[in-house]
Amino acid sequence: MSNKRVRMAMVGGGEGAFIGAVHRIAARLDGHIDLVAGAFSSDPARCLTTGAQLGLSPERCYPDYQSLLQKEAQLPADIRADFIAIVTPNHLHFPVAKMAIEQGFHVLSDKPATLSLREAKELEAVLSQHSSLYGLTHTYTGYPMIKEAKHRVATGQLGEIRKVVVEYSQGWLSQATDEQGKQAKWRLDSSKSGISCCMGDIGVHAANLAEYVSGLAITELCADLNHVLPGRALDDDGTVLLRFNNAAKGVLMASQIAVGEENNLRLRIYGDKASLDWSQMEPNSLWLRPHNTAATLLRAGVGELCDATMKALRTPAGHPEGYLEAFANIYSNFAAQITAFKAGDTATNEAFDVPGIHDALRGMAFITNAVEASTHDTKWHPFKMDL
Amino acid sequence: MSNKRVRMAMVGGGEGAFIGAVHRIAARLDGHIDLVAGAFSSDPARCLTTGAQLGLSPERCYPDYQSLLQKEAQLPADIRADFIAIVTPNHLHFPVAKMAIEQGFHVLSDKPATLSLREAKELEAVLSQHSSLYGLTHTYTGYPMIKEAKHRVATGQLGEIRKVVVEYSQGWLSQATDEQGKQAKWRLDSSKSGISCCMGDIGVHAANLAEYVSGLAITELCADLNHVLPGRALDDDGTVLLRFNNAAKGVLMASQIAVGEENNLRLRIYGDKASLDWSQMEPNSLWLRPHNTAATLLRAGVGELCDATMKALRTPAGHPEGYLEAFANIYSNFAAQITAFKAGDTATNEAFDVPGIHDALRGMAFITNAVEASTHDTKWHPFKMDL
Amino acid sequence: MSNKRVRMAMVGGGEGAFIGAVHRIAARLDGHIDLVAGAFSSDPARCLTTGAQLGLSPERCYPDYQSLLQKEAQLPADIRADFIAIVTPNHLHFPVAKMAIEQGFHVLSDKPATLSLREAKELEAVLSQHSSLYGLTHTYTGYPMIKEAKHRVATGQLGEIRKVVVEYSQGWLSQATDEQGKQAKWRLDSSKSGISCCMGDIGVHAANLAEYVSGLAITELCADLNHVLPGRALDDDGTVLLRFNNAAKGVLMASQIAVGEENNLRLRIYGDKASLDWSQMEPNSLWLRPHNTAATLLRAGVGELCDATMKALRTPAGHPEGYLEAFANIYSNFAAQITAFKAGDTATNEAFDVPGIHDALRGMAFITNAVEASTHDTKWHPFKMDL
Amino acid sequence: MSNKRVRMAMVGGGEGAFIGAVHRIAARLDGHIDLVAGAFSSDPARCLTTGAQLGLSPERCYPDYQSLLQKEAQLPADIRADFIAIVTPNHLHFPVAKMAIEQGFHVLSDKPATLSLREAKELEAVLSQHSSLYGLTHTYTGYPMIKEAKHRVATGQLGEIRKVVVEYSQGWLSQATDEQGKQAKWRLDSSKSGISCCMGDIGVHAANLAEYVSGLAITELCADLNHVLPGRALDDDGTVLLRFNNAAKGVLMASQIAVGEENNLRLRIYGDKASLDWSQMEPNSLWLRPHNTAATLLRAGVGELCDATMKALRTPAGHPEGYLEAFANIYSNFAAQITAFKAGDTATNEAFDVPGIHDALRGMAFITNAVEASTHDTKWHPFKMDL
Repeated sequence: MSNKRVRMAMVGGGEGAFIGAVHRIAARLDGHIDLVAGAFSSDPARCLTTGAQLGLSPERCYPDYQSLLQKEAQLPADIRADFIAIVTPNHLHFPVAKMAIEQGFHVLSDKPATLSLREAKELEAVLSQHSSLYGLTHTYTGYPMIKEAKHRVATGQLGEIRKVVVEYSQGWLSQATDEQGKQAKWRLDSSKSGISCCMGDIGVHAANLAEYVSGLAITELCADLNHVLPGRALDDDGTVLLRFNNAAKGVLMASQIAVGEENNLRLRIYGDKASLDWSQMEPNSLWLRPHNTAATLLRAGVGELCDATMKALRTPAGHPEGYLEAFANIYSNFAAQITAFKAGDTATNEAFDVPGIHDALRGMAFITNAVEASTHDTKWHPFKMDL
Repeated sequence: MSNKRVRMAMVGGGEGAFIGAVHRIAARLDGHIDLVAGAFSSDPARCLTTGAQLGLSPERCYPDYQSLLQKEAQLPADIRADFIAIVTPNHLHFPVAKMAIEQGFHVLSDKPATLSLREAKELEAVLSQHSSLYGLTHTYTGYPMIKEAKHRVATGQLGEIRKVVVEYSQGWLSQATDEQGKQAKWRLDSSKSGISCCMGDIGVHAANLAEYVSGLAITELCADLNHVLPGRALDDDGTVLLRFNNAAKGVLMASQIAVGEENNLRLRIYGDKASLDWSQMEPNSLWLRPHNTAATLLRAGVGELCDATMKALRTPAGHPEGYLEAFANIYSNFAAQITAFKAGDTATNEAFDVPGIHDALRGMAFITNAVEASTHDTKWHPFKMDL
Repeated sequence: MSNKRVRMAMVGGGEGAFIGAVHRIAARLDGHIDLVAGAFSSDPARCLTTGAQLGLSPERCYPDYQSLLQKEAQLPADIRADFIAIVTPNHLHFPVAKMAIEQGFHVLSDKPATLSLREAKELEAVLSQHSSLYGLTHTYTGYPMIKEAKHRVATGQLGEIRKVVVEYSQGWLSQATDEQGKQAKWRLDSSKSGISCCMGDIGVHAANLAEYVSGLAITELCADLNHVLPGRALDDDGTVLLRFNNAAKGVLMASQIAVGEENNLRLRIYGDKASLDWSQMEPNSLWLRPHNTAATLLRAGVGELCDATMKALRTPAGHPEGYLEAFANIYSNFAAQITAFKAGDTATNEAFDVPGIHDALRGMAFITNAVEASTHDTKWHPFKMDL
Repeated sequence: MSNKRVRMAMVGGGEGAFIGAVHRIAARLDGHIDLVAGAFSSDPARCLTTGAQLGLSPERCYPDYQSLLQKEAQLPADIRADFIAIVTPNHLHFPVAKMAIEQGFHVLSDKPATLSLREAKELEAVLSQHSSLYGLTHTYTGYPMIKEAKHRVATGQLGEIRKVVVEYSQGWLSQATDEQGKQAKWRLDSSKSGISCCMGDIGVHAANLAEYVSGLAITELCADLNHVLPGRALDDDGTVLLRFNNAAKGVLMASQIAVGEENNLRLRIYGDKASLDWSQMEPNSLWLRPHNTAATLLRAGVGELCDATMKALRTPAGHPEGYLEAFANIYSNFAAQITAFKAGDTATNEAFDVPGIHDALRGMAFITNAVEASTHDTKWHPFKMDL
């Protein structure tokens, strides 16, 4: 085995878990990462079954995350897992990450980073006391044309940003009968999901994407979160008006009850010179529309694109890459970051384009502020990092 | 000449006025209406030139609307204009309409109906004292597939409506240099335009369309209106959160500074069974998306469509009809309404699908409430009809 | 009445005729043309009814085209029709046009120009002996973005043309039960329609559009015409491979049995530098795609467009214009040509961008050559003008 | 390691080879296949480098395919490769496949299967004498919505098929300067590529897709192949008219000089009841258009889809899967076929939905017949399997 390869252990992601399988595909896709261990389920037998299906030896299929972290930590450096992929429901993200970091592992966590902003701050503190790397799978930032969008904004092609419209619409929780599905159940249960369903599950992606591409930071917000289906403890829909640190305005719409919508994440940014428009469901296209000039359709693989975009592509123009490839870009970048770290290099998340603790804090703050602001009668609220 | 034909006089719409020419095309298109007189310009010479270009005899080209209304009123019943088309800047809509009604003419007015809600209420009072018909050119309700959308909602195919998202984005006022254009100048001048530019010019169309199709009424709103370009007295962008009388929520976005946008009016309505999606720039398509079932693309002229839709179409499937045809539908419906009225029939706006005083009041109330709510620190405001 | 206005008489287009109503809307739309007379139907009573609906006086509703032409010719010059619009089934195009020209009228004929290439050559001879203007409603050349496409080719933006792909797919004749409709019946009857249904009705539009935009001429062809539904005397589908006078290759596909297609006319032209792509069903968009460079979407009303395009537009960007406006562009250009002619100017079809006898000859030759070539076992045939 | 896993050795695919990397991603994606050996390059040093990057031990990086096949054949059954992935230029497909089969390996080959139809027939003979499985990567058949399309045809939802239009347009060989690229060079060299460039590289995919989805077989063809750029020995563009065994007609267009096209593979099938339309660049959508009824947009993951489609998907609706996932479906199906074979089951290509020797023969016959027919003056040619 090449010493360039990185070893992964996974917590969560037993049979039937959607996101665990996705993480594994993402980890495998570029061939830099080997899955070597797992605590896939709270049911030890199910963990063993999953491990066997994945070609793991039984002794590295652990009955719980604590054993995994303790036992792996005792293995020789060239055998033990390099990093822990956390793909559990939300409430376990923090305890697993914390213990993993304390045991000397790097961590790549599904989002949202923690159950609360307070936990995110604790996570920040833990990280500051250890040398572990921390990555967060804000998948949508992994799309090549999103990197192009960020580049175009950063190089001034849109001019000064005036308005950001980001929307994330889904319909999968629109029916009462949808609530019993495995994915739905824990997301609607605040003990596992946190204080928000819609904003915590998808709104936070939208907010992250808006800040990632625009390079701006939300400073104020006006929130209207809804519990559309009767009896839901957590929001399933909502709109948040935004103000950014350059005075730009924004609108963030998120919904899980938008019947007929699949996974409609769309970002539009309007500058004083030009605007851009990107949709996750047609991710290889990016519209650039200057003022009163013919629009340009930037396409993955066609013409001049920035280095980050080209690096994120695997195929020539017209061979569509999608969600799994975007996800794999996060994994591959994180694997490269770990490899550089092992080689003794400074290996920041920024340098490797991996969402990290900064995004974790912003994301948890977004959720917290949105929920908080939604309960108030006053319109605008400062975006606070210390609720 | 057939006695089915209806005679029109026009106030406003001299050379260089965009909307006047559009109204004339709309009036001509179906061959039911003859332009017989006009007061096209405050400059009498220019009025004569325009009239000559339009084939009018000089004696029916009047130097001002007052003369037009007085002189036409004195002509024999089979010669005088049946109705007055008002295509001036906003501040003249009310005085012209009022005098026309008092002189016994029917009125078809460009929107917004008046300069203020107070004027709209006066207009309502004037109408109640006379037998004139009153129409308002909320053009977008004239599109065939919008009528289909309304029909699908009304017949329960979407189920109970939960959410309405309506957007009207343009970029034509995004540059300071745009402000000197003829169309821009009066719209940014509150003495001619009223208390709002963006909401008054296009937001009101969006609100009207949302209520027309959904059959719901806005009951509360939370508004954030913006003056994005420095020095503008009136709003050029804004978002309004909505609550409807059935508890549905809504988002209305309008902008004139959304660089790169042409005339992007889009309406989405989400019910508990299905959603619909319509865009003005591809007006012959209407998406219907049931929950977890393949989406249907309804197309003008294809398959079963409701009577109102079929009546609003002139060509078979695949022969695109557009904005001018939608506009002509309002004109033709109003001409039919006048003809029925002349024949002694009850001829309500509802029966002839012509936007009328109800829409005028709702529209002016929308503008007034949005501007008012935007100045307040509290989030939600009742949608009042008597500000 | 302004002396700039042009007077039209119509032959054909009684109640229930689709294309007659379309011609009348096109004639009315820009307000330059007055319908003053008609021989709308072979049934005199129906002719009177149609005339009355159109506001004509009974004495100018003629029982047949012969009377119309004879009687109108005897009216004073400032009253008689200036031109005859021919909207009958194909077999009458030539006799009506011939007699009209001989009586001193200008002619605007629906396509195809005649029933046969021989008739088209006779028409050419008749025109050469008279001073009448002759226009042919190849509607699709009236679209603004088609004029832009032609301009972009002519100014070298595509480089040398290498390949032309033009497709015209419809599904309306796909069912045996469709054959009894009024529109279907005569088109499938060779005595009224000529030697071809599909190529004569729509293939000829495709060929015309390809030559109009590319500026090239077809020189050879290989044809495969099909009679898909059993029992049809005329083709209802076909493909024609093309060679052009610059050695470019082409593919022309036409079908009336392509189930689910509405009126799908699409033109793609590939040069050595760039390609263009236009679809009639989204007519306000024109794609320009250079080699390995981001594609540009030219939109009606956005940015720099050529004069012919701007002249063909009535509304700002984002207000869709469609089929009727394209048709009206042909009418308005022909009206302008007549007005110039009356003023004593040279008024060629080229100068006024009106399809004329050249297009008539090319069109009839296309139909004739395609049908002829389809019956042969050899692959390639010269495109002959004298079959 | 799980005994469910399948071991792969690769021939070809050294650094810089596009398709080798794609095959490896496809093999890795679902986690059923381990790359255990390779002869990646004719340059042994480069082979070692590639192998090292891929985590292979040097002793399983072979200097040429012969050594690979001989040495691997001598390894114990639980260590040696199960199958050989052939990703070389075309001229090596046959010799490598033949020897691999003779040495007892299964083969998964890139297309076209061989350099000539004669070789394909030899391959068929070799296979008939051995028990090896043989798969061919006609990638596009791996798309979920293509499987849905096939299912809809097979279950009669389109009715009797009347017309098939398949197009594969690319622009990457449109410039003389493109010819020096590594990918271009061998494709334009008949000693490595065979008798055709455009038809052999992409036309064959189009023909395969048309037959796969329609369930029909081409029986006659009329071909017009072009050498658009001067000096090219092989075709870079062409159109082939088709007749199928049920009397349906077809048009196949392929081009590598269609400037501005990326990888535009599109399939339309028209039946007597409905049509379908699929584009590779938006692969998760499939249009179904019944006669004069609203069109349905089938989307990956939405509503009822057939088992083969669901099995080919990894993510919920709206999470786009693309080219690599389609490719991985071929690999995963082939791995499952091998596993079943090892378990003693009958394991036909049909049962596992893996393109095989039948497709190899049809494909080589298509290329051969198209090139042959293109040189003749007669229009139609029988599609022969024994040229």
